[in-house]
Parts: sequence; structure tokens; C-alpha cells
Amino acid sequence: MGKVVTFGEVIMRLSPLGNKKFQQSEQLEYFFGGTEMNVAASLANFGMEVKQVSNVSNDLVGDAALKKMRQYGIDVSAINVVDHPMGLYFLEVGSSIRSSRIAYNRSHGAFSKITPNVVDWNAVLDNCELLHWTGISPGISEGAYETLKEGLIAAKERGIEVTADPAYRKNLWNYGKEGKEILAELVSYSTVFIGGVNEINEILGEDFSNDQRGFEDACIKLKATCPSITKIFDKIRSGGNASWQSVYGRAWVNDEYVETSKIEITHVVDRIGTGDAFAAGLIYGLKHFDDHKALRFANAACAMKHTIPGDVNLVSVDEVLEIEQGNLTGRIKR
Amino acid sequence: MGKVVTFGEVIMRLSPLGNKKFQQSEQLEYFFGGTEMNVAASLANFGMEVKQVSNVSNDLVGDAALKKMRQYGIDVSAINVVDHPMGLYFLEVGSSIRSSRIAYNRSHGAFSKITPNVVDWNAVLDNCELLHWTGISPGISEGAYETLKEGLIAAKERGIEVTADPAYRKNLWNYGKEGKEILAELVSYSTVFIGGVNEINEILGEDFSNDQRGFEDACIKLKATCPSITKIFDKIRSGGNASWQSVYGRAWVNDEYVETSKIEITHVVDRIGTGDAFAAGLIYGLKHFDDHKALRFANAACAMKHTIPGDVNLVSVDEVLEIEQGNLTGRIKR
Amino acid sequence: MGKVVTFGEVIMRLSPLGNKKFQQSEQLEYFFGGTEMNVAASLANFGMEVKQVSNVSNDLVGDAALKKMRQYGIDVSAINVVDHPMGLYFLEVGSSIRSSRIAYNRSHGAFSKITPNVVDWNAVLDNCELLHWTGISPGISEGAYETLKEGLIAAKERGIEVTADPAYRKNLWNYGKEGKEILAELVSYSTVFIGGVNEINEILGEDFSNDQRGFEDACIKLKATCPSITKIFDKIRSGGNASWQSVYGRAWVNDEYVETSKIEITHVVDRIGTGDAFAAGLIYGLKHFDDHKALRFANAACAMKHTIPGDVNLVSVDEVLEIEQGNLTGRIKR
Amino acid sequence: MGKVVTFGEVIMRLSPLGNKKFQQSEQLEYFFGGTEMNVAASLANFGMEVKQVSNVSNDLVGDAALKKMRQYGIDVSAINVVDHPMGLYFLEVGSSIRSSRIAYNRSHGAFSKITPNVVDWNAVLDNCELLHWTGISPGISEGAYETLKEGLIAAKERGIEVTADPAYRKNLWNYGKEGKEILAELVSYSTVFIGGVNEINEILGEDFSNDQRGFEDACIKLKATCPSITKIFDKIRSGGNASWQSVYGRAWVNDEYVETSKIEITHVVDRIGTGDAFAAGLIYGLKHFDDHKALRFANAACAMKHTIPGDVNLVSVDEVLEIEQGNLTGRIKR
Amino acid sequence: MGKVVTFGEVIMRLSPLGNKKFQQSEQLEYFFGGTEMNVAASLANFGMEVKQVSNVSNDLVGDAALKKMRQYGIDVSAINVVDHPMGLYFLEVGSSIRSSRIAYNRSHGAFSKITPNVVDWNAVLDNCELLHWTGISPGISEGAYETLKEGLIAAKERGIEVTADPAYRKNLWNYGKEGKEILAELVSYSTVFIGGVNEINEILGEDFSNDQRGFEDACIKLKATCPSITKIFDKIRSGGNASWQSVYGRAWVNDEYVETSKIEITHVVDRIGTGDAFAAGLIYGLKHFDDHKALRFANAACAMKHTIPGDVNLVSVDEVLEIEQGNLTGRIKR
Amino acid sequence: MGKVVTFGEVIMRLSPLGNKKFQQSEQLEYFFGGTEMNVAASLANFGMEVKQVSNVSNDLVGDAALKKMRQYGIDVSAINVVDHPMGLYFLEVGSSIRSSRIAYNRSHGAFSKITPNVVDWNAVLDNCELLHWTGISPGISEGAYETLKEGLIAAKERGIEVTADPAYRKNLWNYGKEGKEILAELVSYSTVFIGGVNEINEILGEDFSNDQRGFEDACIKLKATCPSITKIFDKIRSGGNASWQSVYGRAWVNDEYVETSKIEITHVVDRIGTGDAFAAGLIYGLKHFDDHKALRFANAACAMKHTIPGDVNLVSVDEVLEIEQGNLTGRIKR
Repeated sequence: MGKVVTFGEVIMRLSPLGNKKFQQSEQLEYFFGGTEMNVAASLANFGMEVKQVSNVSNDLVGDAALKKMRQYGIDVSAINVVDHPMGLYFLEVGSSIRSSRIAYNRSHGAFSKITPNVVDWNAVLDNCELLHWTGISPGISEGAYETLKEGLIAAKERGIEVTADPAYRKNLWNYGKEGKEILAELVSYSTVFIGGVNEINEILGEDFSNDQRGFEDACIKLKATCPSITKIFDKIRSGGNASWQSVYGRAWVNDEYVETSKIEITHVVDRIGTGDAFAAGLIYGLKHFDDHKALRFANAACAMKHTIPGDVNLVSVDEVLEIEQGNLTGRIKR
Repeated sequence: MGKVVTFGEVIMRLSPLGNKKFQQSEQLEYFFGGTEMNVAASLANFGMEVKQVSNVSNDLVGDAALKKMRQYGIDVSAINVVDHPMGLYFLEVGSSIRSSRIAYNRSHGAFSKITPNVVDWNAVLDNCELLHWTGISPGISEGAYETLKEGLIAAKERGIEVTADPAYRKNLWNYGKEGKEILAELVSYSTVFIGGVNEINEILGEDFSNDQRGFEDACIKLKATCPSITKIFDKIRSGGNASWQSVYGRAWVNDEYVETSKIEITHVVDRIGTGDAFAAGLIYGLKHFDDHKALRFANAACAMKHTIPGDVNLVSVDEVLEIEQGNLTGRIKR
Repeated sequence: MGKVVTFGEVIMRLSPLGNKKFQQSEQLEYFFGGTEMNVAASLANFGMEVKQVSNVSNDLVGDAALKKMRQYGIDVSAINVVDHPMGLYFLEVGSSIRSSRIAYNRSHGAFSKITPNVVDWNAVLDNCELLHWTGISPGISEGAYETLKEGLIAAKERGIEVTADPAYRKNLWNYGKEGKEILAELVSYSTVFIGGVNEINEILGEDFSNDQRGFEDACIKLKATCPSITKIFDKIRSGGNASWQSVYGRAWVNDEYVETSKIEITHVVDRIGTGDAFAAGLIYGLKHFDDHKALRFANAACAMKHTIPGDVNLVSVDEVLEIEQGNLTGRIKR
Repeated sequence: MGKVVTFGEVIMRLSPLGNKKFQQSEQLEYFFGGTEMNVAASLANFGMEVKQVSNVSNDLVGDAALKKMRQYGIDVSAINVVDHPMGLYFLEVGSSIRSSRIAYNRSHGAFSKITPNVVDWNAVLDNCELLHWTGISPGISEGAYETLKEGLIAAKERGIEVTADPAYRKNLWNYGKEGKEILAELVSYSTVFIGGVNEINEILGEDFSNDQRGFEDACIKLKATCPSITKIFDKIRSGGNASWQSVYGRAWVNDEYVETSKIEITHVVDRIGTGDAFAAGLIYGLKHFDDHKALRFANAACAMKHTIPGDVNLVSVDEVLEIEQGNLTGRIKR
Repeated sequence: MGKVVTFGEVIMRLSPLGNKKFQQSEQLEYFFGGTEMNVAASLANFGMEVKQVSNVSNDLVGDAALKKMRQYGIDVSAINVVDHPMGLYFLEVGSSIRSSRIAYNRSHGAFSKITPNVVDWNAVLDNCELLHWTGISPGISEGAYETLKEGLIAAKERGIEVTADPAYRKNLWNYGKEGKEILAELVSYSTVFIGGVNEINEILGEDFSNDQRGFEDACIKLKATCPSITKIFDKIRSGGNASWQSVYGRAWVNDEYVETSKIEITHVVDRIGTGDAFAAGLIYGLKHFDDHKALRFANAACAMKHTIPGDVNLVSVDEVLEIEQGNLTGRIKR
Repeated sequence: MGKVVTFGEVIMRLSPLGNKKFQQSEQLEYFFGGTEMNVAASLANFGMEVKQVSNVSNDLVGDAALKKMRQYGIDVSAINVVDHPMGLYFLEVGSSIRSSRIAYNRSHGAFSKITPNVVDWNAVLDNCELLHWTGISPGISEGAYETLKEGLIAAKERGIEVTADPAYRKNLWNYGKEGKEILAELVSYSTVFIGGVNEINEILGEDFSNDQRGFEDACIKLKATCPSITKIFDKIRSGGNASWQSVYGRAWVNDEYVETSKIEITHVVDRIGTGDAFAAGLIYGLKHFDDHKALRFANAACAMKHTIPGDVNLVSVDEVLEIEQGNLTGRIKR
């Protein structure tokens, strides 16, 4: 099987311990993450070959980031080391009715300085089977957008599958481009869409409802507008609070609606990266199972991530399959 | 707007980490608290001007206490530094069916040595709009009782609003006075009563039931007995266990019963200081909103405190308002 | 009252902090445990006299183990110090749908080297009222099996009560004996059986169902096969996940079925040792209450252990009685 | 060999981590100590039988204190549990030129409430070979003084050896007695004096110099004044700072001056309890070696304590002997 | 006495624990510092009135920074809250022969965005007796340079004393100005120069030697070039390594050379901020003592800072005076 | 440049925090090490290609070990995963005069089960330039000895350089072979000898003195006995204690004696792995510098390791070169 390529920022997360407010904590726990690296790390952990394209800083932080990616099993040979600090964010972790709060320091980070001329997409896409991108990267800087676009064009030329997770974040996109239009453009180079009614509405400027009917209509419209898209997968959170989530997946594949059963996570350990865990589960699933099982695997992976500290879904294929098959009792494995 | 004045002990809390028993823990986490200081800190955090009247020790602990109060934004110019150690308590934090357990070491603490002659109430109450006291302080020592009483009389003379939270704790009151009588006396100098049927029964020696009817009757009786009291606000916990609480507020204002909806905290982080958070929310609310919204704000503040480690409700007015308006989903704020 | 004697391995547990995966944690928290030592420690904590028979290593770990047992109040005079390392295991602590995972390193540990000739059962059983064993010990090594058997025979001769908790673990029993047969043999020297349908089915090679009827039939069969057994006590977990458990107890005493009400632990702190807490609660109960109350006390002790970090149920008799009497609200004890 | 009895306060120490100032630290590390308990724990760790006479609190702190003493191997059957909190102190740990600073909270602690009527000295001194006391205990309260005096008289009657470490601390002795006089009185019941020129000068109101000649003269004078004293042992610190100490011992035995060579501790880990380690080393030495070797053993034990965190000298006889024999290289023991 | 005003960045420091490399540490310890804020905090800790002029971020980090400054006792009313993240740096702490290593992320931080129009120097300098600046601030951005320059001009007009610590750091000064010329310009508005031969050589483009003669010549030249400078104070490190420092101070006052004795710090706890501790000690000294004692006080303060974790010299005037008077034994203060 | 191959155990180290005794610590810090893996990791960190041959366990610990090696940059494709637990040891870290103490649990570990048939030396040695082994591996088990011997023969056939660090540890070698003879045999397949007079005496059964003359004679004898050995490199510790070391290197190359100057590490952070750091420095040096500089580089690398926590020398070539060139001041690198 060929490798997966991911493109995106490696970002550092710094959190007070437990549920402390930042002002209460002498110490911060840190993790390296970033939506696409989370996908890459999860895929590597599932045993797939993955290469990430990114920039890291030429200092002790960038050095640690590279080593951490190596630990995850990600091929780092396409990472550039540049003279800008790593992007980072501070996270205060909420609980039940209290929201987590984030303060970003990423807009001048190493990744924001990436430009098309430093990535040799020809070499990177060699023996690549799937390219994964998200809407975060093109929102960070014009260089990131252009680098990604070049990669997508190169992937399209080679007939490489492209998974798009075009999450729109309005507090990005500060460099003068209109986010929604660019996301629509980039989706048009992609083959699998990871997202739901909100994302489709934003990209297409529509107003579909979030029920099954609205989802189906939105999918039909998306496929009509971006004909390269063949499948659409979405994860849904229902109810709950910061410590109690329930998730299920739905999809539009073969012009048909499917959905999974709901998985309840009664005691959330870490909510960051659960969407990335869904994307990684999906990519693994698409390569190993049929579409329906891929969706269930993705949802199970997403559910499991809620129980793992940090940004990366450090669970094995077997652990996910057990959840996918409905064993939710969490009994001790001796 | 004038300032709020609080009178009470600054007490140190020492807890084993997590849910460990004291004997299991090499380390203790510590916080400065004390019911009135918790109110003061929360009000300062909401942006109000607050001055606390208290004693701290003339050693490294007292020094740290003063600095922590300064960090919270409390005016410490009326704090005396005395040659007695700080009061403190040890807290083993329970979980679900296991109760938290407390061991006090406060009866010879710095605050217990306070006497009327060291507090210049004239100066303290200058530009003061509201004086807050609780039933803990007069229970600690005769000096504390007399100092408080002098302050209440001075407040009454100046027409300053006085909020009373006369929680009766039977393991205090070891200096020879009868707690219930003294509390009744001190309530008679106050204008807002924070408490419910239990407190009224204790102070008045009555036996009202804890349902709505009993609450109404108790309020009517209290106002008849202590005519200075104009409003009565109470918080109610229903069911749950050490890790799962649900709270709502009720009040008797304008001779009318009102109550809030219930807020469920499914994963309690810290239960200490939730009553103080209610009181602070109420005081803030009374100064900024109508009585009904004040009650809802107080209940929302109380609920939020369950998610914050330590004794003090380190949440902003905006965070409380979001809960007050019913958004309990705890979504990440980026 | 005479003392209780326990026989079994003292094993070290090493866990990443919180819910971290092993690979995420720089530090490991450690506890000494072992199913029979957990029973011993809990009984000592309840105020009973207890002596453990075991081996520990002649190094810094064994020294710490001895001191920790002494701290628990266990009489360690029958512990041998040998030139083999302590058995140990690594535990990754799961959450909600994620299972905890264990990796053992015990098969060449100090306890596995125990042999009959190093235990003077005559002396050990002097003034002993009850001997407790579990199915773990004979599964570890032939020497452990033979040592235990000798003890059971000696106990039988003296008319000492023997509680058997013959949990069968198939990943033990690597020294060539057939576990199920040996357990049946050892049970035949015992007077109280702690276990349920699964254990009885395994030992007797039966296939009773797990409902009340199946339990009753299994008990009747067990008593017929092992006539020394007079009472059978079982704990049941129903539903839930790694963070949310509910437990109740049932028993067959005086040829009658009894069961307790269910206790819900909505936020599990530590699930290891909950069965041992049941056994210790039962032993204490049998010595201090009637059989029905003993069962309720055992179930309450088991429930409480879910809230205590580590392997040992560090709660007092009073705390258990409060749960046994149905007070599950977890209110703060000041 | 008979047992050693110690009399004194069990006190809790709370320190910020590392060299942090109290105001910088979220957490405090705690240890149980107390000069006499440190001696007791060290002796138990050396394998001697020791019983401590003291009071602890009837709360979760006192319970932990008892269990910790049991872990150390101290016989706690003569400890009373009383309704007063444990004494405690806060310690900011200095470094090199920065002094450690202490804030005490002990004057109303459990031990200060001890009175002669709760100690059955007859029973306590049964099979006792040596009673150890220090000048801290009689300085804490009149009750402590009287209880100790009763014990000393009882010891004298039985011809039990009594080691006196009459360190004079002027910030104790707040209950109206003149410390120096009382210490002189209590020394007159003792047989071995642990202390030097400063202590002798204070007790006798003399002004001997601190050089060898002064020490000899002071010893001669002390023996003349308190004829029960047969031997005098002293430890000397020379130069250094909070992180770098050098220690040696000197003694007046058989009317002869002896001294040990100096041991340099270039990296002090914890300086608290080093005097107690000297006393314990001396007591062990007096029972196992000749007086000269006892002095060297005491000095080596004192030196080793500087490398052990906490109040208690958790080193073995073998480790001390290695230092006593001059092996100071600290090579790894595999 | 009037207040001291400081101008400069508040910067966050993030360090692995102990001497770990960044890649080894799951957690980072953080402190707020910044050379001028360190001076301000130290002065406030000495009891002086201090106001800092700066920018902080409008997020949870900036909020914590403000509260921490308030804890230190710094007047924060002249701090602006802006929509840019806080500057920060990562510090790996070396030991003996291993250097500490720093990675900065400050060039787009909140302070770098400061501009003259947001600081009302008239108001800030009201009742100000001394303005302190360092060479870091003008190196960060043109806006910072211009804002500072405006302040210096305003101070000069009012005859306010100005202490200059013009440390030149060549990895700053990226905005197009020539650092050395600007520093010379800014020194010409100042009255006290904190620095030595290196700084004078850099600013004046000279090549004086670092011995006493060179220092004297450099001072004479500096005063000739910048006649507003009346006094020059310098601290010298001699020999040592990352864990062992020795420091002394020298000065040129009244056209006379003075120097202090050397203080040895054999076990360095934290070397960051020792220069700032010297500056703060000097400012305090100049306001309370004669110039010679001020120099000794500054050197003692600098020495003490080596023993305090974090950026700020949290020692009292009394502690510094004890060192200044030559008591370097670090004995425990009970 | 071709790669380096190392053969040896990956072992887990578990230490109490700081200088605590094991019995004092709730938590243990862990590292993966093992003498040959330490060499491999250091070489990878210097930028060389390295492959380790070893066994790890098929559980969560082995999985973490593999990932940690990957993080270090070691090629793990020749590591076998087997059904035996990882070897491990407990380390109490001493200080100054206190020795560190180790308790091993390795004799049944995964590596001890290695046998020649699971290592394809042909493939492993492909493109290999240097094979490194130590005397630990053949001491662990007969299988390890035979596997190593097979590799050494294969290396010799290919003319690959072989570095031997034949440290003799008498508490290994429990499987019936005579360690000294086997080491002599294995050295005879090697080309570079890392060791000194002690090692040569042990292997050859000689009694050379440890001075320069003895070293020279020992080297001459070794080369005569094992003619494949071309160069001999040794590191010497002189004086000091557990916290203060001084090291220098000496060698016999081209029939000539050379030695380096001494490097003083006044504050040792971690002494484990310093010999391995010397070996790695030497191997790097031999491949990049002349023999004399290689020796200096090795000694500098060894010195630097004393300042790094854990088993692995996580310093860069530049950092070592700076020490090699005599800059020992440890100044901050900004």
C-alpha cells in the first residue's frame, strides 16, 4: 500500500494541569499537535506509512517537535527547518458546563512562512496514495494556501485520492483572502469530503438544515458543485457538555445515506483532536474496509480519542475495532 | 459605584493531590480561602472594588496570603499583620459516594485574635456601598464577634447595605457564646439574608419545612422578626453525590417567591466555595441587575464554581452570563 | 478476637499519571498491592489483627514493601526476604469506553519462589481465627500452590475458618498444573466461598446461568461437591463502563438467597482491588455482624474502594457503615 | 537488648518544592518529624526496638502520623490520640548563601496538651534500656515539662540510661518558666549529655570558649554540676553555607578529649534532622561499639542525613559504617 | 518618597523541569519576567512604589500576567491590553559546564506593538522620582524605541533621575536601526549608568580593557561623552560555571573607583534576572544609602537572586542587608 | 558513511524523584537505557545512522521502548518483539557522600531470551561500518553471548571495525560461563578496546598498576594477546563524590600514550550512562577526527553527560566541541 501525505502546521499546546485556570498553575503540560499532524500520527500508529509536509523552527522547540513526530512514526524528511518560532496555543481545560478556552500565538509561526518553492511536491507525492488537508492550513497564510494548492494540483494530476476536512475558522484568514471562496476552490481538487451541513453551507453559501434531509440535500448540492467529490463523511455531536459527549457518524456514499449508532463518552479525558481522530479513522477505514465499516471505524476512533490525553489518538486498530463492534464496557485487559 | 467590604478569616487549605487519602500523598496542594475572602476575590474578579478586613500572620505564610489577595485584586490595606499563625485546614477530597473530610486548625489562628480596637470601621466603611459577613466569623472567637458587631452597627448608621450569610456551624462557637442567638442579633443589623429554611429555623428556633411553602413561611417569619431584612436568597442542592451536583436558587423578594431553573454539574471539580460563589454572584447581581436576574446570576456563578479548582470562583462576568442564559454545552472557546 | 492470616504475593503496580498512555508519561505512580495483601491491609485498617505470609525481595524494593505493609498495620513477621526481585505490573488506566491495560512481570518474582519449607504454618496459625486465600497464588508457581495447600490442611486440622476467593486467571498457571482442578481441590479445604456462577462453573466444569436461579443451582452444586463450604458470597457488576460502575452483592446462606441493593459509583477513581475490598468487607462483616449485614457491608466496602486511589481500601468501618445504611450523597464531613 | 524510649512532639513539616519561596509554590511537600521522633525512626531503621511517647490529633492528620511512625518501625502503643490539631511548621528551603526560613504553628498543638496523668511511665519504661529527651519538649508547654520530668525521675529510679539533648531555643518557653533553669534541672536526671559549649554555657550560665580547651573546661564544669552525667558528645559544623557543610564530632569520655575527622557534604540535600541523626547514631553506637567508635558512627550518621530528604535519617547501619570507615566517594552500588 | 517607573516587556518564560532537555520534559514551569519588570517587582518587594509601562495580551495569558504583577505589588494602571500574544521564551536550564539555552518568540509580541501615542508620559511620570530603562526595550521594535525616547525626554524635562542599563544584545535590533547608536542616544538622557567596560565599548565604539584601569578610563570617557551621567555601577562575574558563580560590584562615583568584596554562590538555583536584581538593589540603595553601601547592597541583592527560582528577586531588604554585612553562612532562621 | 550497529539490552530505569529514598517516593521517573542503546542514541543524536539489535517485550512497555528509540533516531527494524517482560532496574540516586543504589530485575527479561537464530547478521551488517558491543550483553544469558559472538565473527569476516567496551560486572554471569574468559574471547574479534587497566587485568588475569606506566604495559600486553586490537581508549575518574566528578581520557594509539586535560563537573545531574557517552563520543570522534581529538571529544562527551538527566547523552556535536575546546564556563546561550 502506498503512503499517506499530510500537509499542515505542527503546533504546540500548553495547558495548565487538570482543570486549573492558567493563573492558578505553576506548570504547563505540553503536547505537539496540529490537525493534520494528529491525522498523520494516528495513521502511523495504525501502522500506515505517513509523511508530513511542514515547517518547524530551528531551535530547541523545533528539534523536539521533529523527534516527537519521529516517535509517532511519521516520516519527517519533508519537514523544513526555518528561522521562525513554532506556532503555539494555550488551552485552559474546561469541565462539564465550563468551556475550554484557547489563546493562539500562531500567526507568525514557522508554518505560516511556508511557500511553494520549498516543497518538492513531485518527490513528496512519489508512491503516495492519499493526500489529506484541512481548512486550517490555507487560513494561516497566503504562502500556506499557495503551497497547498500546488500540492492539490499535483495530486490531481497523479490521480491521488484527496481527503478534504475544510473546517472553516473565522479567527484565521487574516491575510486578505476570503476563506470561504478559497475553501470551495480547494475542495474542487479533492475526492473525499469530511464535513457536514455547516461546512457545506459555509463553502457554498447555502442554508441547508442539519437534519438528515438537510444533510442529504447539502451533499447532493456539494457533489453537483464539486464533481470530484465522490463521498461525504460527517461526525455529529449530540447534547452533552465539556465532560460528557456522545458522537455518531453519517455519510453520503453511493448516493445513499448511512449513519452509525451513537457512542456515549461519559467521562471525557481530552476533547482536542477528536475530529482529527475521525479523519484518521476514516482514511484507515477507506483503505481497509468498505465505506460503511469505514464510517463506523471513524466514529469509534473519534470516540476513543475522547479518552486519550493530548492531541493524538494513541490507540491501536484492535482497540478501535472493539469499540466499532459495540463493546463499550471498558473492562480491564490483563 | 462604591466599594464592597468583607470581614472574615483568610484560611489556608491543604489537600492531598487528586482523590488521594492524606496518608497516601507526599504532597499537598494549597489554596488561600475563607468564606468572606472567597466572596471578595470573586467580586474583585468581576471588576468590583473590594476591601477585606482581617488579620494575617507575620510570617512567610501571612506574607504569601497578602500577596495572593493582591493578585485577586482585593484591597488589603485593612488587613492587620499579627504574631499568630494563619488558620488552616486539611481537606481530603471525596468522589461520588465518598465524602470529603476536613480537619481544622483555626481556633488559635491570626483571625481569632482580632479585636474591635484594631479595626477603624470609620475609615473602612468610607465610600462603602455594601458590607458582607457570614456566620463563620462570629463563631471563631469573641473578638471576631465583637469586631463584626461594631462594623455592623457602623454600617447601619451609615445606611450601608449589609448582606448576611449566617451559616451556622456547630463545631465552631467554642468560646462560650450561644451561636444561634448571636446570629439572630447580627442578622437584625443586616438588609439582605442569604440562606434558607435551615438557617432561618436555626436562628429563630423554628421548624419550617424545606418545600416552597415552608420557605415562604420562614421568610415571612424572618422579616417579621428582623425587619431590616428586605430580601432573602437561597441556593438549593438537589440529589447527586460528591462528583455530581445540581443547583438552583430561590428567593423571597417583594413578598414574592421566585426560583431559577436547575443547573446540572455532571463532573464536579471542586465543591468548596460554591456557596461563596453564590453570595458573590448575588452581590454583583444586586448591583447590576434586577432581583430576579441577580438570583439567576448567583445560581449560575455557584454552578460555575463547581468547575474551578480551589476556593475562589475565578470566572468572568461573561462566563457567568453565558450560563445564566442557559448555554450549558461547554463548547471550546477559540 | 483471633487474627486473620493471608497468604499471597505482594506485587508492585506502576501506572502512568492520570489517564495517560504509558508512552506519554515521564513518571509512574506506584503502589504495593496484591489481592491477598489488599485484603490484609483493609482488615488492618478496619482494626483487625492480620498477618501476611509472603516473600519479598532483598533489595530496596522489598524493603519498601515491608515498610508499606507495616504502615498498613499488617504483621510482617512471617514475610521472608529472598534474593529475587519483586513481582510487578504496569497499568495503563482507561476511562469510560477505554479499557485499562496491564502488562505483568511476575512469573519469576520473589513470591513465585516460595516453598513449603520456609513457612512454619504451626507458628503462623497460632491464635488465628481465619485464613484467607485466592486463586491467584496457586496459579503463580508450584511452590506457591504447595505452600498454600499445606497451610489449608493445617488450618483444617485446627478448625480455622477458611475464606476462598478462587478467581481463575487463565494467563497464570504456566507451570504445568491444570488450574481448575487445583482450585477445586483447594476449595475443598475451605469454609466460605467468595465467588459466583463463573467461578463455580470453571471449578466444577458446569454451565449454570448467571441469573438468580443459576446462582442458586450453582451454589447447591458447589456445596454438594465441597461439603466444607457453608456459605457463598458473590459480588455483581451491572452495566457501566471503566468510569461508571454499579455493584451489588448476593449470597447463598442457610440455603437461602439474599441480595443487596445496588450502589452506583458515577465517577470511578480506581477499580483495582474492588474485589479484594469486597472480600475484606465480608471477612470483617462475618466476624462482627450477621450474614446479611456482612453481605451489605462487603458490598458497601467494595463500592467505596472505587473511590480510593491505589490497591488498598483505605476507608474506615464508619465510612463503610454509612454507605451500607444507604447514605450515598457524599456530603462534606467537617 | 532492651528498647529505647523517646518522648516528644510529632510535628508536620510543609515545604515548597525545591528552593521555591512559599509564595511561588502551588504545592507543599510534607514530612512528619520532630526531633525525638527523628531519633526514634532512625534507631528503628537501624534495627533497634523503639517506643515513642507522644500525643497526636484525632483527625486525618494524626491518623497519617501514626501510620507513618508504624512504617518507620516505631512502637506507637504509647501515643495518645487527642482532640487538638497536630503541631506543624512551614519551611522555605534556602541554598548556599540563602538561609532556610521556618514559620511555626505548634504552640497549641496536640503534644502541647500532654500531661503527666496520661502517660503510664511504669508501663512505658518496662524493658527499657535508654530514655532519650531533648530541650524542645519541655519548652513547648508546662504539661510537656512535667510529663517529661516524671519520666526522667522514673528512669533514674530504674537506673535506665538517659540521653539528654538539651538544645535551648529561645522562641519556645512561652508558658512562664525560665528555660535555662529547667534544662539544668532535667539534665541532672540524665546520664549522657549531647551538646557542646553553647548548650553548657546556656544551662550553667557560663561563658566557656568554643575551642578544645573551652570544651574541656565546660565538660568538667558540667560533670561537676550534674554528677549523673558520665559522657558528653558534641557535633561541630565548620564553615560552609546552606548547601555545603562539614561536620565532625568531639567528646569528653573517661575524662579525655576525643574528636573525629571532618566529613565534607559538598551538596546538602536536607539539613533538617542532622542533629537528631547524630543523636540516633550515638545511641546506636553506645549500645554496639566503644565510645570512640560510637562518636565516629554518630558523626557519620549526621553526615549521611544531609543527603536524605525529609526529617528522618533513612540510612542503614552498613551505609553509616562505610562512611565511618572513610569511604566518601559515593560510588554507585549495583 | 516618589515612585519608580519602569518601561519594558513582560515576557513569559517556559522551562523544562530541573535540568531536563526540552525534549525530555512533559511539563514546563513558567514564570513572568522581563528585565525591567524584574526590577519593578524587586523594588515593590523591597517596599517601594513602582509603576510599569507596558503592553500585555488581551487573552488568558495577558490576564495572568497582570494578576502576577499585581501580586508582586506593581502598579499596573499604565499597562495597555492589546490584541497580540505575549512575548515568550523557552529556557533549557544548564548545569556546571552545560550552558542554558534559550529560544525566543518575542518579535511579534504584545510589547513590540507599543507606540508613543498609547503612553501618557505626563500622567505616568507624575510623582515619579526615578525612571528605569534597559537596552532590551529599544531593541525590540521601533515603536518601543520611540515610546521610550519620548519618556526619557519627558523625564529629563522634569529633572527625574534616570537609570540606564543599556545591555546590548545583538540578536535583537532587527527593525533596521543601528543598536549601538540608539543606545548612545538614549544614555545621553540618563543620569545613572549601570554597566561596565563591555557596554561602554559597544556604545562608544571604544576598546578599553576590562581591568580596573580600563574601567576607570571607560567611565571617564563615558562621562565626557554623555555628561548627564553622574555615576557608573557595574557588576562582575569571575570564573565559575553555570552552577557556581562569584560576583562583585565596582563603581565610578565622585570620580573615584570603588569595589565590593566578592560573594561566592556555590550552588546556583537560577541565574536569570541576576543583573536585574543588581539594578533593583542599586536603585533601592541609591534612595536609602550612600553610594558605596548602595553598591554593596546591589551586589548582595544580585548574589541572593542566584538562590531564588524564577526571574524575580523575591528577597526582603533584611535578607539582602544580612548578606551585605557579610553573613554568608546560610543558617536556618527559625 | 556507513552505519553503526549496536547489540544489547534495552532496559528500563525507575527512580524516585530527586534524591528521595525509594520508600519516600510516590512516583518514579522512568527512562529507557541500556549501555549499548545509550551509545546508539547518542550517535543518532550526533547525526550518525545507527541500528540496534535487541529484543523488546510484546506489551505496552515494549511498545513504548520502540517508540522512544525511534524518537532518538535509532533504526529499530532489527528489534524483535518477544513474549517476555522488559528488563528493568530501580535506582535510588545518591548525593555527595551517599552512593546511588540499584536493584536489578533483568535476568529473565526480553533480551535475555535472544538467540542466534533470530538475528540475521548478514542483513544487519549490510552497509555497516562499525559494530559496538559491551561486556554487559554476554553476561546476561548464554543466548545473548552466542548471538553476539555470531555477530562478531560476521563482522570480522566483513572487515568491519568493532569497538569493545568489555566492562566486567560480577553480579551478571549467572548462567554458568566464566565471564573473564568469554570477554577475552570476544575482545579477540574486536579492533578498538574501550577500557583501562582494570578491564585488561580482569580479562588477562594480570595485575598492572593504574598509573601511566601500568596503563602502557597493560596496553602492550593486550595488543600482544589480542592482535586485532589496534587502539585502546580509557576514561579515568579522579577523586570527587556522587555529586562532583572529574574526568579525563587516556589512550594508547600508534604505540604512544596520550591523555586529555581534566574536566571538572562540580554539580553532577546524572551519572548513569557517562561511560556510554564516552564510547559514543569516541566512535563519533574516530569517524570524524584524528585519534587525539577523538579522545578529547570522547572525554568532553562523557563530561557533558554528567549534566543530562536520564541514560542518554542528549547533547549535540557543537555542544561537545565547545567543551572539547576548553570552554567550561556554562554561559547562557541566547
